[in-house]
Amino acid sequence: MPTRDEIVEFFKRDFPQNTCLVEDIGDRSATVVQHIDDSHLRPGQTVSGPVLMTVADIALYVAILGTIGLVPLAVTTSMTINFLRRPASDRSIVGVSKLIKVGRTLIVGEVNLYSRDKADMVAHAIGTYSVPPSSRTSKG
Amino acid sequence: MPTRDEIVEFFKRDFPQNTCLVEDIGDRSATVVQHIDDSHLRPGQTVSGPVLMTVADIALYVAILGTIGLVPLAVTTSMTINFLRRPASDRSIVGVSKLIKVGRTLIVGEVNLYSRDKADMVAHAIGTYSVPPSSRTSKG
Amino acid sequence: MPTRDEIVEFFKRDFPQNTCLVEDIGDRSATVVQHIDDSHLRPGQTVSGPVLMTVADIALYVAILGTIGLVPLAVTTSMTINFLRRPASDRSIVGVSKLIKVGRTLIVGEVNLYSRDKADMVAHAIGTYSVPPSSRTSKG
Amino acid sequence: MPTRDEIVEFFKRDFPQNTCLVEDIGDRSATVVQHIDDSHLRPGQTVSGPVLMTVADIALYVAILGTIGLVPLAVTTSMTINFLRRPASDRSIVGVSKLIKVGRTLIVGEVNLYSRDKADMVAHAIGTYSVPPSSRTSKG
Repeated sequence: MPTRDEIVEFFKRDFPQNTCLVEDIGDRSATVVQHIDDSHLRPGQTVSGPVLMTVADIALYVAILGTIGLVPLAVTTSMTINFLRRPASDRSIVGVSKLIKVGRTLIVGEVNLYSRDKADMVAHAIGTYSVPPSSRTSKG
Repeated sequence: MPTRDEIVEFFKRDFPQNTCLVEDIGDRSATVVQHIDDSHLRPGQTVSGPVLMTVADIALYVAILGTIGLVPLAVTTSMTINFLRRPASDRSIVGVSKLIKVGRTLIVGEVNLYSRDKADMVAHAIGTYSVPPSSRTSKG
Repeated sequence: MPTRDEIVEFFKRDFPQNTCLVEDIGDRSATVVQHIDDSHLRPGQTVSGPVLMTVADIALYVAILGTIGLVPLAVTTSMTINFLRRPASDRSIVGVSKLIKVGRTLIVGEVNLYSRDKADMVAHAIGTYSVPPSSRTSKG
Repeated sequence: MPTRDEIVEFFKRDFPQNTCLVEDIGDRSATVVQHIDDSHLRPGQTVSGPVLMTVADIALYVAILGTIGLVPLAVTTSMTINFLRRPASDRSIVGVSKLIKVGRTLIVGEVNLYSRDKADMVAHAIGTYSVPPSSRTSKG
C-alpha cells in the first residue's frame, strides 16, 4: 500500500486544486484538515456547506487510496451530508473518515467532521464511490 | 430519564406491532435485536431491506426515548440506508444506534447493523427525527 | 423487453411475499399500488415507514425489470427516503418510479409516493441498485 | 411574495460570494445557472462535486425565498446528492429545483442538475432546510 508521502505526492500531481492537508492514514481510515479563512465562510460567519462536503470527499478519497492503492479513477457516486452544528469560523475543519465497505466495484465510507479541538461533530457524511475493477492494484 | 423497563413498557403499549428486543440503552445510544425467521427473508435467503430499516428506526427511537424521555410524538423525517453485505439468514439482526445531534426540534442519529456475532456491518443508516418542542420532558 | 404480464409472473415466482400490484410500466418508469390494512399502520393511524420503503423498492425494481429485462440479481445498495406528510390510513399507497440513471452496473431511480387520489406526495425516495454486468439482457 | 429582482438583490447583499444567476422563479420552484470555468473543474475535465452541490443548494434556497419570503435564517440541515453522469467541462450547470414539502419548520426540495442544453441529468439532489417559525413572513 502507498505511504502517506506517496499519497500526498499523488494528490499534488492529480488534484492540484486540493487545499486539505493529509494528517493521518490508518487502516481503511484517514484524517484530513482544511485551514479556514474568509473565503470558506458564509453569511453568519459559518463555514459553508460545500466546504464541508469537499473535506468529506477528500477524507474518503484519501482513505480509499490508502486501502486499494493509487487509483485515479475512483468516482464519487453519491454523498449524504447532515449538517449538525454551526462550525466555528476561526478553526480548521477536521475530517475523520472510515471505510465501511470495500467491495469489488463499490466503496462506502463515513466521515465525522469537527471544528479543530472541539468535541461535537459539526457534520456527518456518507459517501459512495465507484471503482473500475481493472484499476485495482490490490484487493480491499 | 426513563429506565430500560419503562421504555420496554412504553413500547409494548404504544408500538404493539414492534418485534425488536431492547438489549441495551446507553448515553444517547441503544442496542436492539430482531430475531430473524422465514417471514423476514427475501429470495436469495437474505434479510429484506425493510426489515433492516425497521430495526434501524427502532434502534434510533429507543435511543431518543432514553435521551429526551417518553415522547410519543417523535416522527421519522428521513432515513438514508446503505446496504453493505448480505445478512445471514439464520442470525438475528443487531442494531447499534448513536445520536449525533439532539437539537430542540431535530434529532439525528446513526445505526450500525450487524448479523449477530459477525464483525462486518451489514448495513448503515442515518435517520432524522422531528420532535415537537412542547412534548419534550427534558433537554437533550 | 418483458411485458407487464411477464413481470407480474416473475414477481409471483421470485418474490412470493410481495403484496404490491403492478399498475403500470412505462419508459424507465412504473406505478405500483399497495392496499393498506391495519397490519400496515403505526400508532397514530398512519402508514409505517418500512411499508413506504417497501413500496418504493418494488416500484423501482419493476421499472428496472421493465428497462433491462428480468434480472433476478439487481440488488438495492442504498435508499434515501424523506417522509413528507402523514399518509391516510384508509387509502392505498401509490408509488410512481422513474429511473434517472441506467448505467452498466449502477441504476439510480426516484419514487414519488402518494395516498391514492391525493395530490400531495407523502414521501419521496431515491434508490440505487447494483446490477452484475453479465446478467444484463439488454443495454439500458 | 418577493419578486425575482428582490431575491436577486437579497442575494447580492447577503450572499456576496454567490456566483449563480437566478434564471427563473416559479411556484415553489426555481432555475439557477452557474457559468463554468477552469476553477470549477476536477482532473478528468469534469465539474467538481462541491460545485454541483453549491448549485443545488442555491437553487433550493431561491425556491424557498420565493415561497416563504426573504428569510435570511433558512439553514440547510441535510443534502443527498447522486452523481449520475460526467458534466461537460465547457457548459454551464443548470439547477432546476422544486419544493416537495413546505412545512412550518422543515422544507424539503429536490433539484435536477444539467449541463446547459443537454437532456440527461448530471446529478440529482434532495435538500432539507430548517426555518425558525418566527422568521416566516408568510405561510407556505
